[in-house]
Amino acid sequence: MSAKCTLGIDLGGTNFRIGIVSADGTILRVEKTPVGQKRTAADIVKLMSGGVKKMRSECQDVTSIGIGIPGIVDSDEGVVFKSPHFPDWSDVKFGPMISQETGMSVVIDNDANMVAVGEAWLGAGSGLENFVMVTLGTGIGGGIICNGHIWRGDHGFAGEVGHTLINFDGPACNCGSRGCFEMYASATGLKHLVEDSSDPSKPKFMKIFHNEIERVTPKAIYDLAREGDIFASAIWKKFGVYLGAGLAGIVNTLGITNIVIGGGVSAAWDFFIKETQKELSRRTYKKTASLVRLHKAKLGDEAGILGSARTASS
Amino acid sequence: MSAKCTLGIDLGGTNFRIGIVSADGTILRVEKTPVGQKRTAADIVKLMSGGVKKMRSECQDVTSIGIGIPGIVDSDEGVVFKSPHFPDWSDVKFGPMISQETGMSVVIDNDANMVAVGEAWLGAGSGLENFVMVTLGTGIGGGIICNGHIWRGDHGFAGEVGHTLINFDGPACNCGSRGCFEMYASATGLKHLVEDSSDPSKPKFMKIFHNEIERVTPKAIYDLAREGDIFASAIWKKFGVYLGAGLAGIVNTLGITNIVIGGGVSAAWDFFIKETQKELSRRTYKKTASLVRLHKAKLGDEAGILGSARTASS
Repeated sequence: MSAKCTLGIDLGGTNFRIGIVSADGTILRVEKTPVGQKRTAADIVKLMSGGVKKMRSECQDVTSIGIGIPGIVDSDEGVVFKSPHFPDWSDVKFGPMISQETGMSVVIDNDANMVAVGEAWLGAGSGLENFVMVTLGTGIGGGIICNGHIWRGDHGFAGEVGHTLINFDGPACNCGSRGCFEMYASATGLKHLVEDSSDPSKPKFMKIFHNEIERVTPKAIYDLAREGDIFASAIWKKFGVYLGAGLAGIVNTLGITNIVIGGGVSAAWDFFIKETQKELSRRTYKKTASLVRLHKAKLGDEAGILGSARTASS
Repeated sequence: MSAKCTLGIDLGGTNFRIGIVSADGTILRVEKTPVGQKRTAADIVKLMSGGVKKMRSECQDVTSIGIGIPGIVDSDEGVVFKSPHFPDWSDVKFGPMISQETGMSVVIDNDANMVAVGEAWLGAGSGLENFVMVTLGTGIGGGIICNGHIWRGDHGFAGEVGHTLINFDGPACNCGSRGCFEMYASATGLKHLVEDSSDPSKPKFMKIFHNEIERVTPKAIYDLAREGDIFASAIWKKFGVYLGAGLAGIVNTLGITNIVIGGGVSAAWDFFIKETQKELSRRTYKKTASLVRLHKAKLGDEAGILGSARTASS
């Protein structure tokens, strides 16, 4: 492996993945490590630094690391204020800690921001001056690309679009608010939509899952919709409507008309996107609606690693 | 009057005001003209150009005009796509039309953007790199200052924060959506809050207005709250809660922690701001909430004229 590589790391709640990325955006190698039960910041720093050292031994010319972290991150200071997957973390100087352990230059940022940078570099956002990246996973992540750069706001917290409002008195969200966007248009939202439905076709659908809501994953609802299940299809349509409603608020606020939609749940694209477009049009001015373009993310799981590497190398 | 003056114009639904503004931001003279019944774009262009010519005769060195216009404006092209006060207007080349009539250089923009520029120049936003201007009037206007400049988005439509969502199935809004922010935290919102209330103190309150909801203006509710009316005070508190909920979504999206609040309805500041702060804290992460600052706008009615002049001169 040649010079001028960068390490891109994507930290999730279950695993982290370290990728060696070349200057042209080729992922030369990826290693996945389970996070395990020990989840303090010190534990994760130790585990991740070990992984970095191992990867670096395979490519001596790597000098910088980019890390995407779920949560509220101050990229300038390298601090994680809060992470939904690591509830013990509070004002953790994660960037400096990894840097000290590895002797390498480290940039950290919110994971959705890293995905946005990845898609801007080599994916669906390539060539777009401005776009909003929305990742549909357990929750909803967001990254805003403004004039070709990630917009972090005053303290690094921009793009928390999952916590914009859909329903004033809606279900309680982890963030402390109620009725957040991510309580409707994410994996968590899908569960709520199933639970709250009183559609007559629901009992037949639930029977497939032995009436256990825990088993009702986005993948399972997707598979059933593909098999023609009426209830599953209706759930995706409702999901699409809420997605459109939330995106409309983002478009009205930012005036950015290109939206890139990624994350695991976006795999069901064909089952929800028409409703999303319709609702978005209903909730924006006609002129605005005519200019909005919804793009399917192109890089899948690799976006975070690529964006992290890109951020570290720039 | 000396050289280097600029005309700042603030167009409203009832009047427009033309101000002669010096380079240091002194308003040397203001003239107010009723818009009247003839409201096509050609009518308003004629009326406004007449006013401009008259003002210019008093200060020969004025060569540029800035105009703040309520509605969806493409500032680059000088086009008004839609204006709530002038329903006949559609894709009107207002800037070029005024320029042709007056022979002067013309810049137009959304009125709340002009207010934001005014407050950034000489008001509550002075010295702030980033802030969001929110104007509470009949509806809610917004202007976003990013790195010291107005952020217009891809086509000039950024800052339409009045049309972010509060309640998915809320009351129908002029924009075509339902449950928009401005259906709760504006003059229009106040009327809805009064109408929807079933508080036992409401009948006594409504009796003062002969039970006619049209008479229930923000000013009247403000005056009654000052006199200690329980119902009026409760309405302002509810208003404050909804204002906080809407602002939380803006803060979560943009990551901008300074909010400047202006517009006529903001005069009741003391009666709603505590609830606004509380609700904003409830609907943002603790760290974010600790950094948010709400500022009362300083320039009142003059902000639009000053911002329009500033935009034209820069």
